[in-house]
Amino acid sequence: MEYILSDRVQTLKPSAIREIFKYASDPSVVSLSAGNPAPEAFPTKAIAEISSKIFEENPIGALQYGVTEGYPPLKAAVWDFMKNKYDVGTDNDDIIITSGAQQVMDLLTKTVCNEGDTVICEAPSFIGSLNSFRSYNCRLCGIPVEEDGMNIDLLEKALQTQKNVRFIYIIANFQNPSGITTSFEKRKAIYELAKKYQVLIVEDNPYGELRISGEDVPCIKSLDKDGIVVYAGSFSKVLSPGMRLGYAIAPKPVLQKMIVCKQGEDVHTNSWAQMVAHKFMTEYDFEAHLSYLREIYGKKANFCMDLLDKYLVPAGITYHRIEGGLFIWCKLPDNAKISMTEFCKQAVLNKVCVVPGNAFLTDEKEQCNSFRINFSTPTDEQLEKGIKILGKLAAEVL
Amino acid sequence: MEYILSDRVQTLKPSAIREIFKYASDPSVVSLSAGNPAPEAFPTKAIAEISSKIFEENPIGALQYGVTEGYPPLKAAVWDFMKNKYDVGTDNDDIIITSGAQQVMDLLTKTVCNEGDTVICEAPSFIGSLNSFRSYNCRLCGIPVEEDGMNIDLLEKALQTQKNVRFIYIIANFQNPSGITTSFEKRKAIYELAKKYQVLIVEDNPYGELRISGEDVPCIKSLDKDGIVVYAGSFSKVLSPGMRLGYAIAPKPVLQKMIVCKQGEDVHTNSWAQMVAHKFMTEYDFEAHLSYLREIYGKKANFCMDLLDKYLVPAGITYHRIEGGLFIWCKLPDNAKISMTEFCKQAVLNKVCVVPGNAFLTDEKEQCNSFRINFSTPTDEQLEKGIKILGKLAAEVL
Repeated sequence: MEYILSDRVQTLKPSAIREIFKYASDPSVVSLSAGNPAPEAFPTKAIAEISSKIFEENPIGALQYGVTEGYPPLKAAVWDFMKNKYDVGTDNDDIIITSGAQQVMDLLTKTVCNEGDTVICEAPSFIGSLNSFRSYNCRLCGIPVEEDGMNIDLLEKALQTQKNVRFIYIIANFQNPSGITTSFEKRKAIYELAKKYQVLIVEDNPYGELRISGEDVPCIKSLDKDGIVVYAGSFSKVLSPGMRLGYAIAPKPVLQKMIVCKQGEDVHTNSWAQMVAHKFMTEYDFEAHLSYLREIYGKKANFCMDLLDKYLVPAGITYHRIEGGLFIWCKLPDNAKISMTEFCKQAVLNKVCVVPGNAFLTDEKEQCNSFRINFSTPTDEQLEKGIKILGKLAAEVL
Repeated sequence: MEYILSDRVQTLKPSAIREIFKYASDPSVVSLSAGNPAPEAFPTKAIAEISSKIFEENPIGALQYGVTEGYPPLKAAVWDFMKNKYDVGTDNDDIIITSGAQQVMDLLTKTVCNEGDTVICEAPSFIGSLNSFRSYNCRLCGIPVEEDGMNIDLLEKALQTQKNVRFIYIIANFQNPSGITTSFEKRKAIYELAKKYQVLIVEDNPYGELRISGEDVPCIKSLDKDGIVVYAGSFSKVLSPGMRLGYAIAPKPVLQKMIVCKQGEDVHTNSWAQMVAHKFMTEYDFEAHLSYLREIYGKKANFCMDLLDKYLVPAGITYHRIEGGLFIWCKLPDNAKISMTEFCKQAVLNKVCVVPGNAFLTDEKEQCNSFRINFSTPTDEQLEKGIKILGKLAAEVL
């Protein structure tokens, strides 16, 4: 049998990060390439308690079919949380619970993009979302990220010149992979441009609660008087990624179609996970848990940045200091003797795994002299060991 | 803001069944329109036990990110089960765990269909799958179902004349909604035709374990020497639909791309659910549970068919006696004074909800004089009450 594949999947490749995991699973390799929450960040005791309680009180509810839109008490809890804390959500919006925020990207693209339509994103950007857009044969247009967010002039130029732009995809807080937080000024500018050119904004905010220094910047969605922002939230970094729980708060006409698409995609999201998240948000001290996470990740981030200062900076590698999130973006010196790709390969041979920066570009073949480090998954010992090795390598080969 | 929607979702509507649920949620209405497992069919005690054990033994495993392909021990358990019991799966195949079998339809369509390509299905067929195919702008070509499965001549004619047929979608056991089981002769004929015309077969088998009389018929996938069958399995009817667990056993070149698509769709399936299903299959008596389900549903099906014989048959409504599954397909007499749609509307006004048969056609506007009854969700009292009302109505208006 000669298998005929759709045009959209012909060129689709597994995420480069997932491929790197193959090396990373070798126990002798220090992996700084993942994006997993720290094991100590899971409220395992609370979840075990809640889960037992659910099976005592309402086992059928946890096991039976649910509605596509999501478990109503969880929808209400998330809605209230986002409204009260971030002023996200208007009368024109509604909420859907999804199987992770990744599904928001899939459903939204399916809902608003024809094949060949353009999605504008940050360059670099989160590879999982880019692959989701690619899987609908969208054209990707990357706008370079500066210290305070996308280059606004280039964004407007893209909106003027690109064909059938359907939305701007942005991770405004502690962006993956760059670590950049978009300034309030730029958030307003991006909103005004989207309004002017009548395109949607997809604001993906998985790391928003993980701020370790500085002040919160208002969500773009909180500016949304015109019904142009789709907000994507996630429980992966604040509760558990294995539960696969996310949500979208979006204008009703768009959300309605996303619901119909979700029906055909997975009917609804795992009921047990929705019930656990609801009880955790409403019967436990969710804010205290978030503070605890900020404490864990603050410590780990500062520890990691100290190590970078000590071992990588002297070898000419620079990085952007982060105020939150899980990732640090490291740049090779301009006069490096070997390419970033080569550096990452040599790192693996030396038993340290990082993600080559070009994996996050709209065109992986483009030049890039940065790589991404994650500090949430490794232990402190692993971090120190891995960064020491990188430093030694850098001193030798750069 | 004027929202621009993709061509593929413009005409996509919520499933008619889900719309009917709005009436069905009125507690004074007897709903014979769902497809939910009977509440007594859930092994709640075992699942509660397993869940506690998981949170004692390996909480991080249940809460952390998993791999897209699925939890390896569950993959192995399902593979062995299907191989040993049904001779499903060859060296050319592999397995992926999905978020319900619904996701198999979505991933497969995304993988092998361009917009405008044709999917051949039974007429009538499962509306959820049809909507999944529609959401990729596939053309649907329905082949009438006879007492022993699809009309083979019409199937071959469709394969000869339809453009870019990518696969034949079939529910061979206790089909939803018709209740028909495709004979072994027809399974072989369909396989040979697919091979001759080089198209895939998607064999969707959610009800296979729920046989209440007669003999098992070999799966089409067990005939698959040529790598042309994608087998879709589900835990929804044998464990829990709220867990959203399904799987596909399929030729590797197709499965590999489905995995890449799943990465962009929901990353992976809920880890806890996968671990629960694995332990239930390997540490509990899964076969005893399946026997118990057959006992429950056998009783309910026979009770329902007795009621139909008593109340509907005298009014001229006929039905196909089932050997398994959850649904019965009822046909209005040819000389009925009112249409099926009108009959279903009047039924709702009389506080009984059934699903109009045209909801299951490739073109909902086509004429259909059948409706679908479900017997797994209502209690025996509700079943009796509902069917009595239908009988009274039929005697009055047909």
